[in-house]
Amino acid sequence: MIKPFDDTYYMKKALQEAEVAYEKGEIPVGAVVVVEDRIIARTHNLTELLNDVTAHAEMQAITSAANFLGGKYLIKCTLYVTLEPCQMCAGALYWSQISKIVYGASDEQRGFTAMGTKLHPKTKVVSGVLAEEASELMKRFFIEKRNLN
Amino acid sequence: MIKPFDDTYYMKKALQEAEVAYEKGEIPVGAVVVVEDRIIARTHNLTELLNDVTAHAEMQAITSAANFLGGKYLIKCTLYVTLEPCQMCAGALYWSQISKIVYGASDEQRGFTAMGTKLHPKTKVVSGVLAEEASELMKRFFIEKRNLN
Repeated sequence: MIKPFDDTYYMKKALQEAEVAYEKGEIPVGAVVVVEDRIIARTHNLTELLNDVTAHAEMQAITSAANFLGGKYLIKCTLYVTLEPCQMCAGALYWSQISKIVYGASDEQRGFTAMGTKLHPKTKVVSGVLAEEASELMKRFFIEKRNLN
Repeated sequence: MIKPFDDTYYMKKALQEAEVAYEKGEIPVGAVVVVEDRIIARTHNLTELLNDVTAHAEMQAITSAANFLGGKYLIKCTLYVTLEPCQMCAGALYWSQISKIVYGASDEQRGFTAMGTKLHPKTKVVSGVLAEEASELMKRFFIEKRNLN
């Protein structure tokens, strides 16, 4: 059976959010939250615009999805995010008890894996979905930024 | 020389914020951010009211202080918080490059020390300031909550 709404489908939506961030001069990371094949939050990194280190795509996605659901736990939800979450975002995801996290590119330096951040025992993790696309966008951003300075 | 504005002085202000949280039925954690002997942010836990696991006192303190300063890095700032920060908050403090964190009660279960969350190398940590008062307030909150249910 063809399953059109797979992890790649939703990661493409997260990548579109990352592209919006890119166009705004933000480090290009995007996220969506999905519950029962429905996107309930679409966010991207806004740390520059908001002058706020806490404004990562994932943090906004958690807040936004909880607002939509009217409850603070993201049980039955999946977060799609183009870059591996950091300690802060993984810590927030821990509290949210989210069912599944799907990320694209790994962050060898500051990702939660390297940092040893604990996720909730109920949370499943899938990595590497459209990793190359996400990684390409990040590289392009930093090259462009370097050339501008 | 008498130094009226010491860690205990500011932790009392954080405790006052924790008491406000308590009165609202929130887990009673309060925080203030201080720069050059001036309080630039006063916050308390609002996870219940906002239905948002990210609404810890420290997260709001970081956002609020950055808004006040007009920049996202909290260099030269000290955070006073009544309870040891969790992974999420410690991860956010890492990004903020805050100079100093002073906390009251330890959180043996979910504090950043037990969880192994990394702080920024520039950040100094002081613990145990008015720990008993902060801990008492937490205990009272959970006893009352249990009795209500």
